Amino acid sequence: MSIWLQENSWEDLDELRKTGKNVIIIPVGSTEQHGYHLPLGTDTMVAMTLAEDAAQQTKTVVAPPLWFGWSPHHMALPGTITFRPEVLIEVLYDIIDSLQVHGFQKFVIINGHRIVNIAWMQVAAEKAQRQLGVKVVLFDPAFMSKDIMDDLQFESVGHSDEIETSHMLYRHPDLVDMSKAVDNPVLKNSLYSCDPSFTGDTLCYVPSTVKDMKNSIDAAGGTTGKPSKASAEKGEKYHKHLVNHLIQVIIQLQQN
Amino acid sequence: MSIWLQENSWEDLDELRKTGKNVIIIPVGSTEQHGYHLPLGTDTMVAMTLAEDAAQQTKTVVAPPLWFGWSPHHMALPGTITFRPEVLIEVLYDIIDSLQVHGFQKFVIINGHRIVNIAWMQVAAEKAQRQLGVKVVLFDPAFMSKDIMDDLQFESVGHSDEIETSHMLYRHPDLVDMSKAVDNPVLKNSLYSCDPSFTGDTLCYVPSTVKDMKNSIDAAGGTTGKPSKASAEKGEKYHKHLVNHLIQVIIQLQQN
Amino acid sequence: MSIWLQENSWEDLDELRKTGKNVIIIPVGSTEQHGYHLPLGTDTMVAMTLAEDAAQQTKTVVAPPLWFGWSPHHMALPGTITFRPEVLIEVLYDIIDSLQVHGFQKFVIINGHRIVNIAWMQVAAEKAQRQLGVKVVLFDPAFMSKDIMDDLQFESVGHSDEIETSHMLYRHPDLVDMSKAVDNPVLKNSLYSCDPSFTGDTLCYVPSTVKDMKNSIDAAGGTTGKPSKASAEKGEKYHKHLVNHLIQVIIQLQQN
Amino acid sequence: MSIWLQENSWEDLDELRKTGKNVIIIPVGSTEQHGYHLPLGTDTMVAMTLAEDAAQQTKTVVAPPLWFGWSPHHMALPGTITFRPEVLIEVLYDIIDSLQVHGFQKFVIINGHRIVNIAWMQVAAEKAQRQLGVKVVLFDPAFMSKDIMDDLQFESVGHSDEIETSHMLYRHPDLVDMSKAVDNPVLKNSLYSCDPSFTGDTLCYVPSTVKDMKNSIDAAGGTTGKPSKASAEKGEKYHKHLVNHLIQVIIQLQQN
Amino acid sequence: MSIWLQENSWEDLDELRKTGKNVIIIPVGSTEQHGYHLPLGTDTMVAMTLAEDAAQQTKTVVAPPLWFGWSPHHMALPGTITFRPEVLIEVLYDIIDSLQVHGFQKFVIINGHRIVNIAWMQVAAEKAQRQLGVKVVLFDPAFMSKDIMDDLQFESVGHSDEIETSHMLYRHPDLVDMSKAVDNPVLKNSLYSCDPSFTGDTLCYVPSTVKDMKNSIDAAGGTTGKPSKASAEKGEKYHKHLVNHLIQVIIQLQQN
Amino acid sequence: MSIWLQENSWEDLDELRKTGKNVIIIPVGSTEQHGYHLPLGTDTMVAMTLAEDAAQQTKTVVAPPLWFGWSPHHMALPGTITFRPEVLIEVLYDIIDSLQVHGFQKFVIINGHRIVNIAWMQVAAEKAQRQLGVKVVLFDPAFMSKDIMDDLQFESVGHSDEIETSHMLYRHPDLVDMSKAVDNPVLKNSLYSCDPSFTGDTLCYVPSTVKDMKNSIDAAGGTTGKPSKASAEKGEKYHKHLVNHLIQVIIQLQQN
Repeated sequence: MSIWLQENSWEDLDELRKTGKNVIIIPVGSTEQHGYHLPLGTDTMVAMTLAEDAAQQTKTVVAPPLWFGWSPHHMALPGTITFRPEVLIEVLYDIIDSLQVHGFQKFVIINGHRIVNIAWMQVAAEKAQRQLGVKVVLFDPAFMSKDIMDDLQFESVGHSDEIETSHMLYRHPDLVDMSKAVDNPVLKNSLYSCDPSFTGDTLCYVPSTVKDMKNSIDAAGGTTGKPSKASAEKGEKYHKHLVNHLIQVIIQLQQN
Repeated sequence: MSIWLQENSWEDLDELRKTGKNVIIIPVGSTEQHGYHLPLGTDTMVAMTLAEDAAQQTKTVVAPPLWFGWSPHHMALPGTITFRPEVLIEVLYDIIDSLQVHGFQKFVIINGHRIVNIAWMQVAAEKAQRQLGVKVVLFDPAFMSKDIMDDLQFESVGHSDEIETSHMLYRHPDLVDMSKAVDNPVLKNSLYSCDPSFTGDTLCYVPSTVKDMKNSIDAAGGTTGKPSKASAEKGEKYHKHLVNHLIQVIIQLQQN
Repeated sequence: MSIWLQENSWEDLDELRKTGKNVIIIPVGSTEQHGYHLPLGTDTMVAMTLAEDAAQQTKTVVAPPLWFGWSPHHMALPGTITFRPEVLIEVLYDIIDSLQVHGFQKFVIINGHRIVNIAWMQVAAEKAQRQLGVKVVLFDPAFMSKDIMDDLQFESVGHSDEIETSHMLYRHPDLVDMSKAVDNPVLKNSLYSCDPSFTGDTLCYVPSTVKDMKNSIDAAGGTTGKPSKASAEKGEKYHKHLVNHLIQVIIQLQQN
Repeated sequence: MSIWLQENSWEDLDELRKTGKNVIIIPVGSTEQHGYHLPLGTDTMVAMTLAEDAAQQTKTVVAPPLWFGWSPHHMALPGTITFRPEVLIEVLYDIIDSLQVHGFQKFVIINGHRIVNIAWMQVAAEKAQRQLGVKVVLFDPAFMSKDIMDDLQFESVGHSDEIETSHMLYRHPDLVDMSKAVDNPVLKNSLYSCDPSFTGDTLCYVPSTVKDMKNSIDAAGGTTGKPSKASAEKGEKYHKHLVNHLIQVIIQLQQN
Repeated sequence: MSIWLQENSWEDLDELRKTGKNVIIIPVGSTEQHGYHLPLGTDTMVAMTLAEDAAQQTKTVVAPPLWFGWSPHHMALPGTITFRPEVLIEVLYDIIDSLQVHGFQKFVIINGHRIVNIAWMQVAAEKAQRQLGVKVVLFDPAFMSKDIMDDLQFESVGHSDEIETSHMLYRHPDLVDMSKAVDNPVLKNSLYSCDPSFTGDTLCYVPSTVKDMKNSIDAAGGTTGKPSKASAEKGEKYHKHLVNHLIQVIIQLQQN
Repeated sequence: MSIWLQENSWEDLDELRKTGKNVIIIPVGSTEQHGYHLPLGTDTMVAMTLAEDAAQQTKTVVAPPLWFGWSPHHMALPGTITFRPEVLIEVLYDIIDSLQVHGFQKFVIINGHRIVNIAWMQVAAEKAQRQLGVKVVLFDPAFMSKDIMDDLQFESVGHSDEIETSHMLYRHPDLVDMSKAVDNPVLKNSLYSCDPSFTGDTLCYVPSTVKDMKNSIDAAGGTTGKPSKASAEKGEKYHKHLVNHLIQVIIQLQQN
């Protein structure tokens, strides 16, 4: 029996729901440029692989992936697909609304598109909780790996950086071309940081304009950070840290 | 190099776009009950496998799949996920809108969720053509296999019927459980048929209510038609017929 | 007593509702160019005349006509009025919603604007059935005259063609100027036909762009088909065929 | 040649537009209860007859009528059809938007549904003027007959009152049943009047709730005012006063 | 204890609600140009000062002010902020919806932005009454001072005119610069007047376009009317007249 | 001359805009319960006082305050007013859209309603930047005081806590009733914290349901945190820290 909802018949799915105590995982990512060395689907693949491993160990169902997120800034490079946030809110709402009809009551949304998707997910989650009487939690790797940033010597969160590259080297090495990885260090701005692990005073995150993105793109093909420092070993530690936390979140939900 | 957009870097994707002469295929399906013997993701898998084979032969790109469609009637059984049509229209519009920014100009939408998705796809396609200046065509297996219905002795289009079951036996045999296939012949209604191959007078299709669906579900677990008649051989002929037509459509677009 | 809702007082209308067993007919058409020889209101007039005759014979009420439909492609010529589909969906929904408050439970939507209006009508009909608990059927002359196409020697469905022209010659001869009728044969496209009576493989219908329409307009003033073949006699047979079917549909609804 | 757009071919319509100097009249009414003695379509018929007479004398085109308005309060009695104001705004906008593509630049909206429709018409008119660069004026019989209220001894504006009844007796006597007319004097409220001819201090108009309407309905079948005082003679004077003013408005627009 | 909701704790607010018998006042204005001599916030300040005085005398609560209204025409001069009417409708609806949850049942909306805001307020008020079961009244100074126009020798309603200027001289003299007041008499138009105190035949109000506004602005910096005639004494009489009427409206609501 | 836009004439406002180099501050808060001891308007007052002080020192304009935010969870207690996020997005967009017409190009949004308003503000800010070509930054006290949390011995961010109470004691002591302040320590949840200064792994913030809020309310009247520890001295240091940072942000914008 597969943990993926879409690979089960409705009868088997209904059994899985009971086994998983009405918890379901929804992997959401993006389709957007990830530099010269990572595939456009990186963010969704990240959400999927986290979901798969945690679901296997907790016997929980995973909904079909949503390959599309909010990526207005990455429209600066080919292949990026962005949805308006008001569309994404309704998309996630309709997924949750449909599934709660069938008895699912607790939803773990995995955001493979670190940080950026959070804004519209919060709006969708609150709406679902209020109107449908369900529980929704938002699991974002950037917020769930603050504890190991120092340990793994990850520098601050960028894009197609050592963190994402390490993760992909561990789970999808065939889709990574390290020969094309270009470093482009994250610049420090006074009173502004996107990184949830940043401990100082900061303005809040707003996605860049395409115009601003095009400048950094000229430098390094869309990468911010130092992918050259990436390794599958770091990726494995990072992955296991996240999966363990994800399992812990699922078990908490199953027990309440 | 993969034909799937999401498995390429943005640089490779841009090359693929040029090779495919600005044509892109968007596979859309549904996640909905498919009787006791087929998986919930059948419709999306159908769209994906057609897209893959035609793309390989024409060197065209395929966008990430949309696993969700308009399935209000199938909410009668567990696992079905339905989006409101107004949400689906904006989803497809945003995919096309994003891709045309990057130079794609001709869009082949494959509807794995036969017939039902057509209504909202027509609205989205017209809007995209008018507002974005692109070309959009809608490829639906039920409308593209009328010529071989008799030849393959397929009876009229149902749900989880011999057609879908044959197709899945050919492409995803591991996800089909023929031991659970139950027949439930399509009933003839005076002046009403959903089947595009029906040649007589008819009212137009409107999705059933959940209440009406529940009646037919009691009879056969969600199946309408005769899956017992299915075979991988029929599935192969059906698949190749569709892929050939799809290739023909793509070539027509590339030449204009 | 008039069969038109708007010509009755509310007391008489309430009586008529009971006589008609809670069935009501809603005629919907378009206001769009119909070549040199037919009036802009042809489609709505067609819906109205079908409704009137079937209502008289079944003692059913007819709602006031909606003179506006989805005609983005015909904006290529003066006088065409098009509504966005999302507006039309809400328009039809509000009509049905209002009428069901007063006890109407079964709605026959007549689409005088053959084929094109079907997409948004399906969305509106499903929404009304699901949210309001009513029954909605869609009656389209192009889908309800497949049985007599051969008999009347009608060629494939076009625009301002021999079918529409014959119908108008029978019911509104004063509004037809046959001296201006120009033939413009329907071109066959590989794997594409708009005609519901077409039995071969085809892509699905999407309204043309204004740019594409302007080309065919230059040829024949907006006509596609052979209006010169039209006659009032054919129109009468066509009309009676449709009215008989419409009556049959109404009686089926009244008996359930 | 007919003054109704829908009865012309597109060629003739284009000629008419030039003759009328790009002015077009759009008759809008309602379908709502009008007491025991008037038909449900009274408001639309009023708008249509005013439009017809003024158009004949100024050689101006009239768009197809909109039979539906904002009538939430009249849902208290059978046959009333109400649209949400946000739907009506888009409906009127789409009509104006389509027509301005064909060269119409000045729009006279006639509101047969006195007072109530004004709110959403103002929103639609401003939006059209701002976004489309056209001119839109709103012609409402209640605001355009203040000068003759005393002369005709009309009491304050009500519903299905002596004013509407007189007008219908003059133009549609066959649809009026004076034997059923019931008087129900307009009550005076401190600091509140709906009547534009009221000269004292007042709160602004808000449509009643269905609950409040049901009380007045019990008294007189939906009428407010004194229809027994109506006569075709008064109706004729009222009609001619309005048509003269409407002609004056059209000529002003044609000269600017 | 303050009459302003926002200056109370929730406990005190709940007491105030009971004292005020579930009536609450919502002051709404605009931020828009008011000539050379009045501040941009004039309309909101007017609504606030009326609300304050009437609330003090009736022990009623006042909601926080809404500083923004519908001012598309005044965008012709710097500082004007305009909301789309569809946004304003939802804004007012959400305020009323939230407050009725806490037990408020009767809402007095004060429109400091005379006449223009009425359209969208009517739509919001009807929606709130219908969907929430509350009572909403609209209090507009221009409609509530018709009785004293002659007495105070106020000419017809303009913009930044003697009426508004007098009111501000009485309540906010420090924000008025009479040395900059420029007169610009209201022009009479045949069959058109915005003034609710105008007793003759008229078309209905539609906000001007920015283009048209720019012409009158060149003449007098945005003023229409004769501010030079203004005085604090007139302002005091005007203010007290309005406050007395407002108190009367509140007491009527409290007694029903 | 006032720094508040609404207290200036349009001429003076235009001068102020130039002085402030096209930067404008928009204070946004909420109206929501703040325990037994703080007023409902606390969040908006906080945004206003920060804006005022920074504007004075940088000669920048402040837009009229928006008293309403996203507070679905605080609907559990009287007086709270919440807007749907989709309404707030359009509200902020319309403010920015109007102001950029008049030449403002850089917008500092102050969020007095710590953390919760950020989600919809991000969506509005991105939309404005993309569609209007302006620059928008989001200033939130909780993200801008991480550096002094330890110094001031502030515990983690709660609601009506020592931070907000200290701030109000410094700026609005008359609106604080310390005799009613009740402590209610912030509970630690495994893998969940709302506090931006929290450095560990966490799920992302989602507003609580009303049901969950009611539990904590029973304990302490809506407070979370330890207001008893508050003092005007701490409030002063906190305020000055924020104002200094705000000034720094404004100067950065003015220099670019």
